[in-house]
Amino acid sequence: MGGVVDGVPAGVELNLPRIQEELDRRRPGQSKLTTQRKETDTVTLLSGVYEGRTTGTPIGFTILNGDVRSADYDHLVDRYRPSHADYTYEAKYGHRDHRGGGRASARETVSRVVAGAIARQMLEQMTPEAPPAVSAYVERVEDIAMPEAPAFHDKKTVDATPIRCPHAETAARMIARIKEVRKAGDTVGGAVTVVATQIPPGWGSPVFDKLHADLAKALWSLPAVKGLELGSGFSGTLMRGSEHNDPFVAKESGIGTSTNHSGGIQGGISNGENIVLRIGFKPVATIVEDQSTVNRDGIPTLVAGKGRHDPCVLPRAVPLVEAMVLLVLADHALRQRYARL
Amino acid sequence: MGGVVDGVPAGVELNLPRIQEELDRRRPGQSKLTTQRKETDTVTLLSGVYEGRTTGTPIGFTILNGDVRSADYDHLVDRYRPSHADYTYEAKYGHRDHRGGGRASARETVSRVVAGAIARQMLEQMTPEAPPAVSAYVERVEDIAMPEAPAFHDKKTVDATPIRCPHAETAARMIARIKEVRKAGDTVGGAVTVVATQIPPGWGSPVFDKLHADLAKALWSLPAVKGLELGSGFSGTLMRGSEHNDPFVAKESGIGTSTNHSGGIQGGISNGENIVLRIGFKPVATIVEDQSTVNRDGIPTLVAGKGRHDPCVLPRAVPLVEAMVLLVLADHALRQRYARL
Amino acid sequence: MGGVVDGVPAGVELNLPRIQEELDRRRPGQSKLTTQRKETDTVTLLSGVYEGRTTGTPIGFTILNGDVRSADYDHLVDRYRPSHADYTYEAKYGHRDHRGGGRASARETVSRVVAGAIARQMLEQMTPEAPPAVSAYVERVEDIAMPEAPAFHDKKTVDATPIRCPHAETAARMIARIKEVRKAGDTVGGAVTVVATQIPPGWGSPVFDKLHADLAKALWSLPAVKGLELGSGFSGTLMRGSEHNDPFVAKESGIGTSTNHSGGIQGGISNGENIVLRIGFKPVATIVEDQSTVNRDGIPTLVAGKGRHDPCVLPRAVPLVEAMVLLVLADHALRQRYARL
Amino acid sequence: MGGVVDGVPAGVELNLPRIQEELDRRRPGQSKLTTQRKETDTVTLLSGVYEGRTTGTPIGFTILNGDVRSADYDHLVDRYRPSHADYTYEAKYGHRDHRGGGRASARETVSRVVAGAIARQMLEQMTPEAPPAVSAYVERVEDIAMPEAPAFHDKKTVDATPIRCPHAETAARMIARIKEVRKAGDTVGGAVTVVATQIPPGWGSPVFDKLHADLAKALWSLPAVKGLELGSGFSGTLMRGSEHNDPFVAKESGIGTSTNHSGGIQGGISNGENIVLRIGFKPVATIVEDQSTVNRDGIPTLVAGKGRHDPCVLPRAVPLVEAMVLLVLADHALRQRYARL
Repeated sequence: MGGVVDGVPAGVELNLPRIQEELDRRRPGQSKLTTQRKETDTVTLLSGVYEGRTTGTPIGFTILNGDVRSADYDHLVDRYRPSHADYTYEAKYGHRDHRGGGRASARETVSRVVAGAIARQMLEQMTPEAPPAVSAYVERVEDIAMPEAPAFHDKKTVDATPIRCPHAETAARMIARIKEVRKAGDTVGGAVTVVATQIPPGWGSPVFDKLHADLAKALWSLPAVKGLELGSGFSGTLMRGSEHNDPFVAKESGIGTSTNHSGGIQGGISNGENIVLRIGFKPVATIVEDQSTVNRDGIPTLVAGKGRHDPCVLPRAVPLVEAMVLLVLADHALRQRYARL
Repeated sequence: MGGVVDGVPAGVELNLPRIQEELDRRRPGQSKLTTQRKETDTVTLLSGVYEGRTTGTPIGFTILNGDVRSADYDHLVDRYRPSHADYTYEAKYGHRDHRGGGRASARETVSRVVAGAIARQMLEQMTPEAPPAVSAYVERVEDIAMPEAPAFHDKKTVDATPIRCPHAETAARMIARIKEVRKAGDTVGGAVTVVATQIPPGWGSPVFDKLHADLAKALWSLPAVKGLELGSGFSGTLMRGSEHNDPFVAKESGIGTSTNHSGGIQGGISNGENIVLRIGFKPVATIVEDQSTVNRDGIPTLVAGKGRHDPCVLPRAVPLVEAMVLLVLADHALRQRYARL
Repeated sequence: MGGVVDGVPAGVELNLPRIQEELDRRRPGQSKLTTQRKETDTVTLLSGVYEGRTTGTPIGFTILNGDVRSADYDHLVDRYRPSHADYTYEAKYGHRDHRGGGRASARETVSRVVAGAIARQMLEQMTPEAPPAVSAYVERVEDIAMPEAPAFHDKKTVDATPIRCPHAETAARMIARIKEVRKAGDTVGGAVTVVATQIPPGWGSPVFDKLHADLAKALWSLPAVKGLELGSGFSGTLMRGSEHNDPFVAKESGIGTSTNHSGGIQGGISNGENIVLRIGFKPVATIVEDQSTVNRDGIPTLVAGKGRHDPCVLPRAVPLVEAMVLLVLADHALRQRYARL
Repeated sequence: MGGVVDGVPAGVELNLPRIQEELDRRRPGQSKLTTQRKETDTVTLLSGVYEGRTTGTPIGFTILNGDVRSADYDHLVDRYRPSHADYTYEAKYGHRDHRGGGRASARETVSRVVAGAIARQMLEQMTPEAPPAVSAYVERVEDIAMPEAPAFHDKKTVDATPIRCPHAETAARMIARIKEVRKAGDTVGGAVTVVATQIPPGWGSPVFDKLHADLAKALWSLPAVKGLELGSGFSGTLMRGSEHNDPFVAKESGIGTSTNHSGGIQGGISNGENIVLRIGFKPVATIVEDQSTVNRDGIPTLVAGKGRHDPCVLPRAVPLVEAMVLLVLADHALRQRYARL
């Protein structure tokens, strides 16, 4: 795997261990909760950095993986796994590399993590006096949800448990559920919440690239996403306008709102409050038991999940969600530089 | 208002009355449920069409509106309406046209409707033997929801009631609720469901422009959106993988799936099943009663909703939702033309 | 005609008469040297400006033209004018609006002039202490060329004669030649030189959007261009490296070069010296006498130039050339804002 | 070095040796005429190809080079080479990797050659019955020019001499001149002509991405370009319209023109005739003798050409020119697929 990050200004000091740290959060095999594939996922920067600082030119990178077993996928050459992209790729291209899901493999997300980690460092250095911060966590596994409203939880709190839920008692119940599901050879989904804090008012665009529209596209490009909410989300659609509106008030830091149903974005532009998004992830499609499907000729057949997969993708989705949010914020931070004369 | 639609192939027969018809569905003043502003919204094509057919060059258009009352907005010059974009625009640009919300006005959506109506005709003529169809409807107003699962309902059924809910009994309750809310000077939100049918398998892209990511960006660019679900949505995140996966089966039309939790898209690419999305809309921000806010200097003040606004935006959102889905599908229909040698 | 200019930062004071002034330089009928069509070309701004300053949102405009005579083009419906785009449009789209050349008409350049005039004001206000300036002039008509090396000549000097050649004696000879050619019903070409001065070092990009590559694309998008030279141009290809290299020297304003064979751009990035380009324009294709051609079926036929056209397009090309250069510089001026942390 | 080629349709059979062959044409050390650096330049495809055919997803590649000597560039860390990009990079980014010219190194052109070679195979397979062909050659070295008008010469003819001039007697004189220049430690420039044949009418776009505007941008993005001509070029600007216009005639293959001053493109769209472009290259900036320059502080100093460089870049520019033309044609070939319903 590898990629190219273009558009990073010159002069950003890149801390490589911090990039690797993010990759390690995504890596499989971190705990009993996730797949036992042993991807090492070591990032190497190939270009765009000189003497520790970005040069303004594209940053190329590769990520080496020590544990590929293509043979695990040999039985898939002529049949379609349910709720995977096998069939749709073939319908699109008429030709498909079936090994490990090919380009549809969730392994491609390693590149997103690297890019997001670079975006984070750039954002921090653009306004060192008030660095934006983005943190995600697992809010719900299946029907086990945190009892608290969304808030910013720092990485240390989030990573205190392998499920990455900052509420200890809920985390314990989530972990127990996942172990039970793993034993049954099945999978579960849930929800990740992400909060971006210290985002200055004014980022975004009124019509074509609304900040939340770009965030939506970015987050919906992650595998397994089924739902997205901004601020009050679907529960906000049950309120009356008089209750849902966020009154403006004077705050120490300037103008703000006393509630945040808007989720930090109004009319496609940040308003200085926390940006709050909730992403729903489906249960992973690869399960242990045999499933009925068809082959290329439409003949019914069975397919079994021989690969090494996750009973619950959520803890590993946390760094992905952060990465996608960071990338969008980085774009709009730079775009804001030419919003005014 | 006006706009330019570029990228429409030459040779599409454009039926202007059908475009106007879509605009009429969005127009205010259609019923007691919506704002009493009398926008006439008449579309005129300026370029890109010759002898009734597109020429392949950009289609410019204007939409005239007979009922603008800028003075309605004079009281807003120095204060920020709660949950409107007044403050964020000023934070972004340092300078703002306060009249009617300026570019943040939901009036800009007229251009989306025109573009969507062109996209619809293009899609129909690209595969006249199996024309794609897109239809949206109001599934829920506040807590009053249709009892049925999402399905394709044609325009005649949807437009049978002014609330655009195809379930007559639910529609009646929705209408009663909105009248009550209007009397109280307040507003309500809810959910619109959109279904695209006869979409061939293979539209979309694996990583950067996944079909549902593009749909998400398009739909989140509409005003007042708070949530989005694809297929099984958030309720799908409560299922187990064994239950959520959509088994492939042979159908008369080719390979399909026996359930459609995927909502017609797998790995970012259409699979030939119906594309199903649910969009949650917040209650409109403009209400009749006074609301507390601040002015440019952060001093607390009040703002009142003098303009003529909607108690419930949902029936007028139906053509907008369709338009955004049509535009994305049209893009991917054309992109599919160079997916294979 | 009309257009939309997007990406102009908020806060630029737009002087509308100055925009109109540029349009007037392009307008036909200014002198006996150009076509006698009486296009009035009055620009109206539709959006993006409030209280005289840009709002940061798209600037829409229209340009009304009081003298369209579509009937002048009726004889062209079934035959192809030599060296016009009639045939290629039909080959591309299978369907063509033949009136006035349709979208291929050089009338579309009015929109370029408006956009360029906006870019000019933006550039001036971005660095008011050292405003960039762009000026073009007619250097050569057919074989009648100015005896001097390219240099910056201000608009007053350039516009002193209707041919827009700042060298009076050469201008007189050019004018005499054009009158002679007009009498013969024929047309001539020549060369326009454009010089951009006070461009700071650092604008451009190393590989994908080199400053001169973007300038090349912009200038080659004007009608009738046959050649382009940067700095020393083709005559530079006759020099040896030891002679062609531009030695760096210390100047009052900073580091500069003692010669400027590079034409102000090195490695795709401006170096602070004058940017110097020469554009060769062919003789206009529309001539008075009958020309042989074919019709849609390939049958030989004749076509005559009934329309009202220019014997020499060069003086009217001057504002177009400036506009294209200004647009590219404006883009790169804004891009430079995110080149560094 | 490496890169990613996106947008190639699925199903193109990629012949890797043919890609390598193009790289070998660009490689230094092919003859006494070029630099003696021993870059091996071996291409490896990393993605986007399965069982010898493209999958429709991005094609990543790397090009290994066995002979990098960064130390050759150590003396450049604090001074600017005349007519190189050292100074402009520093002016842009405030920070620069001086080794080998960094991103400004002409070595980046290896990636262009790979991409162009892929484009060539794609174009050939899109219309196997009439495959487009693109061939370039050295038409002039300093003042030694071929006596013939531009025409299509196949690769075998072009590569018959190391200078890549298809006219044997001229080639011999060019070679003698270059040897003489090399002995003097100096460099020379000249002109490359490229001809694209069997290009169907209809490729291109009327206003924003004219075919020749895209070709201009692509070619001007190569290092050392000083001039560009299309068809009749600057000499066409000396003709009268009556003489320059290309009359349409019926040909066996359809409608064509009896002359080709237009160079195969009219109104931004191909007309089916040969596309003919001439590119002027300056003498390479790196020469053996000491040159005066300044250092970062503006203090005069000397710089000497210690690296191993070319006395004449032209024969190695031939595959680069072809690659850039092929890439643009490939884009427009695909775009033509959605020009009509």
